[in-house]
Amino acid sequence: MPQDKQTNRRIVLASRPHGAPDASNFRLESGHVPTPAAGQLLLRTVYLSLDPYMRGRMSDAPSYVPPVAVNEVMGAGTVAIVEQSQHPDYQPGDWVVSQNGWQDFALSDGRGLFKLSGPVLKHPSWALGVLGMTGFTAYMGLLDIGQPQAGETVVVGAATGAVGSIVGQIAKIKGCHVVGIAGGEEKCRYAEEVLGFDTCLNHHEEGLAERLSRYCPDGIDVYFESTGGKIFDAVLPLMNSKGRIPVCGLIADYNSTAPASGPNKLPLLQSAILRKRLRVQGFIISLDYADRFAEFFNKMSQWVAGDRLVFREDVVDGLDNAPETFIGMLEGKNFGKVIVRVAGDKP
Amino acid sequence: MPQDKQTNRRIVLASRPHGAPDASNFRLESGHVPTPAAGQLLLRTVYLSLDPYMRGRMSDAPSYVPPVAVNEVMGAGTVAIVEQSQHPDYQPGDWVVSQNGWQDFALSDGRGLFKLSGPVLKHPSWALGVLGMTGFTAYMGLLDIGQPQAGETVVVGAATGAVGSIVGQIAKIKGCHVVGIAGGEEKCRYAEEVLGFDTCLNHHEEGLAERLSRYCPDGIDVYFESTGGKIFDAVLPLMNSKGRIPVCGLIADYNSTAPASGPNKLPLLQSAILRKRLRVQGFIISLDYADRFAEFFNKMSQWVAGDRLVFREDVVDGLDNAPETFIGMLEGKNFGKVIVRVAGDKP
Repeated sequence: MPQDKQTNRRIVLASRPHGAPDASNFRLESGHVPTPAAGQLLLRTVYLSLDPYMRGRMSDAPSYVPPVAVNEVMGAGTVAIVEQSQHPDYQPGDWVVSQNGWQDFALSDGRGLFKLSGPVLKHPSWALGVLGMTGFTAYMGLLDIGQPQAGETVVVGAATGAVGSIVGQIAKIKGCHVVGIAGGEEKCRYAEEVLGFDTCLNHHEEGLAERLSRYCPDGIDVYFESTGGKIFDAVLPLMNSKGRIPVCGLIADYNSTAPASGPNKLPLLQSAILRKRLRVQGFIISLDYADRFAEFFNKMSQWVAGDRLVFREDVVDGLDNAPETFIGMLEGKNFGKVIVRVAGDKP
Repeated sequence: MPQDKQTNRRIVLASRPHGAPDASNFRLESGHVPTPAAGQLLLRTVYLSLDPYMRGRMSDAPSYVPPVAVNEVMGAGTVAIVEQSQHPDYQPGDWVVSQNGWQDFALSDGRGLFKLSGPVLKHPSWALGVLGMTGFTAYMGLLDIGQPQAGETVVVGAATGAVGSIVGQIAKIKGCHVVGIAGGEEKCRYAEEVLGFDTCLNHHEEGLAERLSRYCPDGIDVYFESTGGKIFDAVLPLMNSKGRIPVCGLIADYNSTAPASGPNKLPLLQSAILRKRLRVQGFIISLDYADRFAEFFNKMSQWVAGDRLVFREDVVDGLDNAPETFIGMLEGKNFGKVIVRVAGDKP
């Protein structure tokens, strides 16, 4: 069912998942396209970003943002076209980054919109990836918290993911030894041959801790944490004194439903933090760094324009495929930044 | 057996402890007093500092400093008098802070010595406490990593200990709401009535988590970690967004011999770091802040001179009592900074 201009398709949260989400947690609905009032815009979704953090918003556990309410549209960053405008700053046909969520149309009063112009319009969906939230997460987490120095060793989990792939490439630009970890041979080959990582280790194979130790002969100075679980267990013993661990995600734990079984590894982490004088710091890009978006966007645009960075998208067509794509992403089935193309990319 | 000037009594590490140390891990020996060569000093120990970190140095697990070798003198910070000098910068009778270890006499070439003069000579042993390593740890950990702001809530484990008592008082000077945790009613009363903490909770009583929640109605912004264990478990759920956790010690875990039993609380900590954007940072005062000692010493001396700070010592007489005192300190039997008076404090 393609997008048309008379119908607003919306995917709502039908029920809260217990553990891994499945198709029954989502419901596709149809409604009327809303009409903008004075000061408002009507936005039509072209690209929809799917990201692991959305799993957290499907639960009602306490978190940094309120959860999505049951029967409400799933939230998401989107690239959209202005379809109608009653707002002086926008014209029909303008491209914007917005928060339409998993639906075809949304109204906006202009707050929080980011108008796209210039080279990014060659790949508008990149404004959700390398030039958007995930690139921004990689840039600030690595540079502001990780503070990598030339010659240091940087380890990146989810090495070919939307964030990890950028983290590793920025670390290479900064002169670091970069070791990635990814799920599968093909992803590892891509990280080494295309992204330029020094090494990428397949965590589906046995002996991750031993292999990681071999490929980090000088220990690890920065570990960019987006996975948690067994990768963290392998990394921790190799961290060097004064090491830094920016924490931007924990995809391995998002679907867990019960306390993890023992032994209790908390004292091990505490002891490592103390003995090695580690800095472990969580961040939420939209809350912690909103005032540095322009700095990021300019610098990253230069790197992209100068072919210093490669960016891979995993594009799926059709809004109705969003739930299945999202479920697969949490299992690591995607290869690159997950984007749903909701409509053709011509205005 | 008191100190005399013909004999050097030394307490050596007889064997490495498995779990909590006992008397058999230490051995008292006697030897000759060494003679300084050109450029050297002979130092006589007057005060000996006992600190929890020494437990780590009795083990040969990897750590930030090499362990004490078996049959070698236990290391320690000391306040000493220059007994003989072949060094142009020192005269007999000078007071210094040195690293003599658990013995009566030691040679020095002057490196790493800190000469005492002025008001600190009224309480020379304070150069091992409020004006020495433990005060420095409190000062830098709280102010540089914790960065407390007026009106924020600061929680201090081991509230009446050498470090915690100073942390809480500095936090009060900075205008914070300060909640301490200590083992026993008497310590708690002291923290509230003498140190000026807003509240101090006895962790020997039941329901610590519930009581802590009640006395931190606005959550916790800074937790100064020196204990680990059940206190950390009670603190973590109450941490506010952007909270800071300086980690200077983990006394609850120092004697553990096996992995802690489950459930595995590591994912809980990781999740809290991410969701609450916490900064958890370990530090070793001598390695991380050596260049800021003068700043600390001047500021802390002002506070002490202005009666802004109270400092309590738990002084034990006699070098031969050091092992038993150290063992008791790891069990929380001390009340204040533990000092062994090795000799009378008159030159």
